[in-house]
Order: sequence, then C-alpha cells, then structure tokens
Amino acid sequence: MNAPESLRKPLPQAFIDTLSSRFGDRFTISAGVCAHHGHDESHFPDALPDAVVFPHTTDEVVIVVETCREHQVPIIPYGVGSSLEGHILAIHGGISIDFSQMNRIVELHAEDMDVVVQPGVTRKQLNAELHGTGLFFPIDPGADASLGGMAATRASGTNAVRYGTMRENVLGLTAVMADGRVIRTGGRARKSSAGYDLTRLLVGSEGTLGIITELTIKLHPLPEAVSAATCAFPDVVAAVNTVIQTIQLGIPIARIELVDALTVQAINRYSKTTLREVPMLFFEFHGSEAGVEEQARTVQDIAREHGGLDFEWASRPEDRSRLWAARHDVYFASLNLRPGSRGITTDVCVPISRLADCVAATRAEIDASGFIAPIVGHVGDGNFHTVILVDPENPEEIDRAEALNHRIVRRALEMGGTCTGEHGIGLGKQAFLLEEHGAAAIDAMRLIKQALDPDDLLNPGKILPAV
Amino acid sequence: MNAPESLRKPLPQAFIDTLSSRFGDRFTISAGVCAHHGHDESHFPDALPDAVVFPHTTDEVVIVVETCREHQVPIIPYGVGSSLEGHILAIHGGISIDFSQMNRIVELHAEDMDVVVQPGVTRKQLNAELHGTGLFFPIDPGADASLGGMAATRASGTNAVRYGTMRENVLGLTAVMADGRVIRTGGRARKSSAGYDLTRLLVGSEGTLGIITELTIKLHPLPEAVSAATCAFPDVVAAVNTVIQTIQLGIPIARIELVDALTVQAINRYSKTTLREVPMLFFEFHGSEAGVEEQARTVQDIAREHGGLDFEWASRPEDRSRLWAARHDVYFASLNLRPGSRGITTDVCVPISRLADCVAATRAEIDASGFIAPIVGHVGDGNFHTVILVDPENPEEIDRAEALNHRIVRRALEMGGTCTGEHGIGLGKQAFLLEEHGAAAIDAMRLIKQALDPDDLLNPGKILPAV
Repeated sequence: MNAPESLRKPLPQAFIDTLSSRFGDRFTISAGVCAHHGHDESHFPDALPDAVVFPHTTDEVVIVVETCREHQVPIIPYGVGSSLEGHILAIHGGISIDFSQMNRIVELHAEDMDVVVQPGVTRKQLNAELHGTGLFFPIDPGADASLGGMAATRASGTNAVRYGTMRENVLGLTAVMADGRVIRTGGRARKSSAGYDLTRLLVGSEGTLGIITELTIKLHPLPEAVSAATCAFPDVVAAVNTVIQTIQLGIPIARIELVDALTVQAINRYSKTTLREVPMLFFEFHGSEAGVEEQARTVQDIAREHGGLDFEWASRPEDRSRLWAARHDVYFASLNLRPGSRGITTDVCVPISRLADCVAATRAEIDASGFIAPIVGHVGDGNFHTVILVDPENPEEIDRAEALNHRIVRRALEMGGTCTGEHGIGLGKQAFLLEEHGAAAIDAMRLIKQALDPDDLLNPGKILPAV
Repeated sequence: MNAPESLRKPLPQAFIDTLSSRFGDRFTISAGVCAHHGHDESHFPDALPDAVVFPHTTDEVVIVVETCREHQVPIIPYGVGSSLEGHILAIHGGISIDFSQMNRIVELHAEDMDVVVQPGVTRKQLNAELHGTGLFFPIDPGADASLGGMAATRASGTNAVRYGTMRENVLGLTAVMADGRVIRTGGRARKSSAGYDLTRLLVGSEGTLGIITELTIKLHPLPEAVSAATCAFPDVVAAVNTVIQTIQLGIPIARIELVDALTVQAINRYSKTTLREVPMLFFEFHGSEAGVEEQARTVQDIAREHGGLDFEWASRPEDRSRLWAARHDVYFASLNLRPGSRGITTDVCVPISRLADCVAATRAEIDASGFIAPIVGHVGDGNFHTVILVDPENPEEIDRAEALNHRIVRRALEMGGTCTGEHGIGLGKQAFLLEEHGAAAIDAMRLIKQALDPDDLLNPGKILPAV
C-alpha cells in the first residue's frame, strides 16, 4: 500500500529545518513515532508518514499547512488511529498532524447544551469533563475516538438511532484550508440558512478538504431514567423484525443493537459472560421514569410477538456498563475467534424494511464462504457490520474476503442502501462509492476537492477513486 | 433591483426557438406569466424573468439547462414564490423553471418512513397524500411551500424544535448541475459516510449550485396523542424563560411558539380570535397519551413559575387547527396592522440562553424606532422574526427599516447567533453572511460555486456577495 517511490518523495531538508526550528520536540522524523502513525485498525498494510508534528493551536496548524504547501508535502490529520478504513495511512508519505496535544475543552455552554472543543478531545474525555453538568455527548462508535476524527469520518454508533450521527451533532467547525486560510463554519445557533453548509461538507470529508482544528458540538440532557435489557431470539430474522416494528412505531429507543449467535459466542469467551448463544438484541431506553417504563413495555410486547425468548434487565449502572462494554469489545472479541487474524469490517446500511432480508442473506453468504465472520449491528438505523476474519499474511484469503465484502455491498446497494453507514470510504471503498453514487456525483465531489485543494495535499488518495 | 441593461441581455431568438419547439405551450415569454414569476413575498422590487418553462421530468430540466448553457442564459428555479428573501427574482433576467407541473409523489415507502417526490409537491399536498398511512411530514414553514423550494432555502418552521429542519429531513436528492449532468446524492439509508455530503451542500444552496428535480424525504409516525395549548405571560422575558427551561430539561416538545402582544392584537383582528393581548406561547405536545400528559404537566409547572397567567387547552383537532391557522396567518395579519404596507422580515436565531435578552432588546429597539413590527418566534430553536411594516413607496422608510434589521442582526451575531434561521440569504442578507462567517469562509463558498457553476448561470446574484 506504500506509494511507488516515484510518488513518495523524501522530505526536503528545508521543510525539516523549518518545522524543527518552529516546533522543537513537537516535530519528529523518528522511525518509531512515524511507525505508530502509519498504522490503524484496518486490515490495510501500514503506510508510514515521513514526519509527525504535534500542534497546540490553530495558528500552529496554519504554519504546518503553509510549510507543506511551500514544499508540496502531503498532510494527514491524525486523531487516535482508530480508523477502520485506512484513513490515516500515509500512502503518499508526508506529515501526520497528531492532534493529541490539542485536547482542550475550549468553552462549555451548559445552558445552551453545546461545547467547543479541540479535535484531540476524545469522546470519553468529553463525557468525563461533562460530569456534574447534567449533560452528555451521546455519540459512541465503540472506540474512544477523537472528536476530530469522528467528525472527519461522520461517525455514529450505538446511540445514533435516537441522537443522530456527527452530521446532526456538529454545529460548527474551525478548519485550516489547503491555502492556509482559517474558516469558521456554522455557529452556535441550533439552525441556520446562512449560505452553503460548509460544516456538513467538512463532516465526513476524511481530512481531504480541510483540517478541523475546533468543533462546536451539541450536547444532550442526561435522561432522568435509563434502562437496558437483552433479549434472545430464535433467529436473526425474528430479532430484526422486532427492530423494524419498534422503529416504525416511532418508539424513541436510545440503543437497539443486534448481535448474532457467533458474536454472542465471541463475547462469552472474551468478556467472560454467560449469555445464551443465540441471536440477541441489546436495548437501552432513555426518558422520564414513566416514559422508560412505557417504552420498555411496548418493546417487550413486540419482542414477544416475534418469539423473543426472555427479556433480561440491566437497570443498575454497573450492569449496564458491563453490557455495553461487552458490546464495545465485540471487535476484539471477534478477532479472538481466530488468533492472529485481522478483521475486514463491512459497514452497509439499508432502509429498515430490507434489513431482515439483508442480514439473513449476508449470514447465508458468509456461511457458504467458509469465513468466520460475526454480525453485529446498529440495527435501528439499518446499519450492520460483519467482521470477516482473515490471515493478514494470506493474500488469496484477503482477496476472497474482499470479494465477499463486495457481494455484501452490492446487495445493500440493490436494496437502496449505502456501502458505509459510519466508517467512511478511506482506501478500500472507493470503487463502492462510484457504484453507489455514479460518475456524475463523484465528478462533482472531485470538482469540489480540486477547487479547495488544487495541489492535492490534504490526505491524498482517500475517498475519491483515482482518475 | 432589475439589473443594469448591460447585464440583462435579450434572449437570443435561437434559444426561444429551441425551447418553444421542444416544450410547446409549456415554454412562454408572455408578459403576464413572466410578471407572475418575477414577484415573491419579500419587499424587494419585482424582477421579471424573460421566459418561463414548465418541465415534467428531470430529462426536460437537462434540456433547459443545456440550452441555457449554450446561450448563456441565467436559470432561476421557481416553486410557489413564497420566498421572503427575493430568491426567485430574476435580477439578471433569464428563464424561470416553474416546477408546478413536477408535482408527483414518485415512490412512497411507508414501511421505511420515506418518500420520493418531485420538487413541485407542496407540503400540504404531501400530507394530504399521506392520509391513512400513519405517517406525516412535519416541517411547516407556514406558507404551503414547495418541497424543492423548502430544500433550497433549508426551511424549517414551527415543528423544527422536535423534528429538525430540511437539513435533517432530506435523505437524498436528484439534481441537474450547471454542466447538464444529473447527480444523485444521499440515498434511502438513514445514515451514510459515503463521500462528501452533496445532499447537505445542495440543501440551502438556493438554486445556485444545482437544480433539485427529485427529493427523498424522511417521514415521521403520526403521534398517538397530540395536544396544544396557549399560555399568556406578563412579559416577553417571562415567556422566553419558560421556553429556555423547557428546552434545557430536554422535554421533546413538538412546537413552542412566541407571539408578542402586538402580534396577538394583529391575530385577534385578522383571525377574529379573542386572545388576551399580552405575550403568549403556543405549545404542541406529541407522544403517547401518557407521554403527552407528562410533558404538558411539566411545561405547565415551568410556565407557572415564570408567571404564566393561564393555560388554555386545544385538544380537539378543530381547535388545534384554528390555533395554528391563526399562527400561520401572522404574516398577513401583521401586514393588516398597516394597510398597504409590505413586511421586511428579520430572521435571527441565537443560542437559547441569549434568547430572552435578544428578544427584549429587539422589542425595545423597535419601540424606539417608531415602526410597527410584531415579534413571533420558533423560540424552541432560538429563532424569532420581526415583521417591520414599511411603505413600499417610501425609500427613506425602507432604508431606516433595513438599518433596524441590521442592528437586530448584529446583536444576534454578537450573541453567537445567525442572520437567518430559516429564510435564507437571497438578495438582502449577503453583507450579513460576510459578517457572520468572515471572508475566508465566503471565499471557500465562492470556490465551490465557481467549480460547480463556472459560467454563473444558476440563480446568479443570490447568496454570495459580489466581488
């Protein structure tokens, strides 16, 4: 995955000198640091940047960008490296901008339920800092991702069915553009019709249009009551039909997650739980005491109609934490099913009415393929993942897994869905992006990219298929 | 407001011939039809297009765009003409594309709670067609606007506090771009991380980046129970503080509207109601029977703490309809306070904690100005309007009203707000857009505009300030 040597040029000495003298220890070309920044959670081979810089301010990012422009050096923004699609891999070399030292809460406006943060703040850090305010940040992709990275990939996760994704929860951004200028998009008003929606254009642009250096984010009141539960089902279709009906009734459920039997087996092994090894739904309800009870009762009735085998409650906070920790560890629990493997993670999202068909057909196709691949899903949104376990040293196996992924994506597209609900395009899904949106839309994206980054310095090689 | 003759060129005969032979009666240069399409609900002087065309399909829009490109004729999309910011005025001449004959529901997916519509479908038409499905389209800007126009201006209205704006409710679009190519953005999945968010870029672009020819829109389950109420307050600040606390508690209120004393007076006169002529809030609650009761009880308690004088319920559908009809007629009721006047409508939106200060200071400023200008607001979002009544024949008065508008906008910007919550930039707010977002962000918008519409044929002169 490293670029051919013709594309990957050595860093000019003048570039190194300029940034060394400006940033001191916070600029490095050390092999160890570069190696750390050339590796993410995807199955793609490592691709190392030639240097790493740790800025503290937007102005410092401007200096980096201007120096990169002068010397035509690629720029890759780096959060915590939890990408599943190779976003942070420096496939054409260049400099990684590590935001871990830009991790301040800039301004908390509790009374307006918004917060201004630097991009290196992680979601857990933010929620820890919100302790005692009565507010929380609900978006939870599992990993303790940075908010900058979550915005850049339009992340979501288990709570999106109720609280939306980064698309709905980023109110405004500060970004350094390829020309070194700083723009401020959106604002703190809850809605605005003032000009082009640059906020939403940058959210999900994976570092290719501008470098996010500050985010204004919506917060939500902590619910008065929270309750979680699990329910076992005779098969995946019964579980998914429970989801479909819950959504169609407009029940404001906070989380509704599918884990298939193989996933439950992985969880039991990894998290030392004793869940029944059949398809399950994990639920969470938020609201007033009465509201939560009412929601739970309705969903329980729906589950029963679909053969739900029992409903186990986790009302104590520690039980809920254990439940969601187990859910969050599914990726690592899955890898554990085949020691030494890496995961090729699929991420389709379909209209909810097609979800049962899509999951069932995917499960059958996986079983026929011989791969070990658990299925989990944020099924309230129609989004589910398979983690196809591959031997990273076996190219034939990787090819077969990618062909399986392609079939899964093609089915989702035929059902009116998308190739990626929340992980982004990165390196591996560029052909799918073209299949999904067609050449004219991709060309429109490319015109925007060329207009805003004419030298192709911002995270080059990501999102847009090569021409 | 008509362009200088140098900019407004007569239509080439070959252009007229091409479209006449292609569209027959559905293409016209008739003075009457052009006059109708050169007039909106704003205070700006009429600006007539040179021709009007009534397409039936996306392919026909492509033909129009290609013919316009060949002859360099400006293109102005037209819904129902309810714009308040001059969006549809043909200030540089050109052709108005009237979408009234593209008003079909293309596909209803009740089980997925989405619908694909042509842009000429109006919101009331859509809701009529949804009758019996258990679903509705909540966004309600007052006017029976077209959905294409609502998307183009990122419209919202009374229900946005609960259901979001067009930004949150448009899932995907078909659009004809300036080069005549058709793009399909977004899709029917509830979320996606697939590439740049062209949907959100087109929503709110006011016809300047592409011409929307189809929309996929989220629908919502009709609530099991609905209840509406009014409450009178001793002053505007008490009313707004009730709103702030309601929002901060996370109560999922569906509508929470402020009408000030002058507005109530206008409503009583125009709608023959007998409301107490003091500041009031109009509420609507959606949910389960128990949920609605619980919400209403909580809000009633909050209102009482802030001196709410009484709470009058409108639980029967016909009482609710009357209440909201009166609210929707506020614009016309206001004009009626000064016969022969036109309204200059302000549209600021501020963070909720600043709303009471902002409304109070605005009211005081209006009173000092001598203008008649009622205040109404979608206050749950921090958004409120004043309708400054001016004599359209009196330029001095219009100048003074615009200076007042400018002071109102500047205060909102100082409070972290926006110059337009929902009406858009159009002709009149371009200087405010620059104040709000700064030159670098405007330049980024301009780069996008130039990349996607290099000949500046799509609704020229709107949104972006002239360079």
